[in-house]
Amino acid sequence: MTVDDSLAALRARLHLIPQVRSMQADLVADAEGRMRMAAPLAPNVNDKGNAFGGSLASLMTLAGWSLATRRLEQAGLDAEVYVADSQIRYVAPLYGDLQAEAWLEEGDWATFVDTFRQRGRARCRIAACIRLPEGGEAATFSGRFVALAKG
Amino acid sequence: MTVDDSLAALRARLHLIPQVRSMQADLVADAEGRMRMAAPLAPNVNDKGNAFGGSLASLMTLAGWSLATRRLEQAGLDAEVYVADSQIRYVAPLYGDLQAEAWLEEGDWATFVDTFRQRGRARCRIAACIRLPEGGEAATFSGRFVALAKG
Repeated sequence: MTVDDSLAALRARLHLIPQVRSMQADLVADAEGRMRMAAPLAPNVNDKGNAFGGSLASLMTLAGWSLATRRLEQAGLDAEVYVADSQIRYVAPLYGDLQAEAWLEEGDWATFVDTFRQRGRARCRIAACIRLPEGGEAATFSGRFVALAKG
Repeated sequence: MTVDDSLAALRARLHLIPQVRSMQADLVADAEGRMRMAAPLAPNVNDKGNAFGGSLASLMTLAGWSLATRRLEQAGLDAEVYVADSQIRYVAPLYGDLQAEAWLEEGDWATFVDTFRQRGRARCRIAACIRLPEGGEAATFSGRFVALAKG
């Protein structure tokens, strides 16, 4: 499986989720250690004309989930990844399309993958944010994800 | 405006949000100090057949937002309420419809309303949870909301 095939497979898996389709959320890139996702403003607007908090939270959580899932896939491991907890700060209203990026906040992927391989279970802490078009952040995220062996 | 009219107005405002419609989320009741919301599982399912974390987060956030918004409306005040931050724990997978309830976690509404009336700005901390049909919790939420005078 090439890198592109792997992103396509993950994208297809995300699109099984009705709310991902309804948000029109999509994987954009996995580069420089960061998983990037995007969604247009229109389906994710609130009653005040800026981005709905639930969509900001969902997109950052999905980017983090996708990052952890992909690192395990890339290591040839079959896992289910769950979000365990999250802290979100809503910093400023966003009047534009949603662009989220997620990265490993603590530790390194090699340790996470090794732990999962040995124990069938591993945890990681992932950070994410959604940037404002004018610079700065609309929202920030820090959350723990747990990977469990399937079955 | 009667109590029922007020809940209908708030419901109509929530339904301006595309993701609220797509989640089929609705206000159920405002009773005993708790705002209750519900959403069916089908549009809020993940790729594993249980409730999507983003929908759990959104429904608890919306219940908290609705609670603070309604307390200000009931006091005859015109405010915009924003979520400022949230901490969410995903406790157990939910294989059923989503039922969220939100309540004031700290302080009292009289102080919140008085503060808003005096300063045109007030904060409150709201807790929420989504229960499992078999008892216990699927997810818990604690978040701060800020009310700002309009205009």
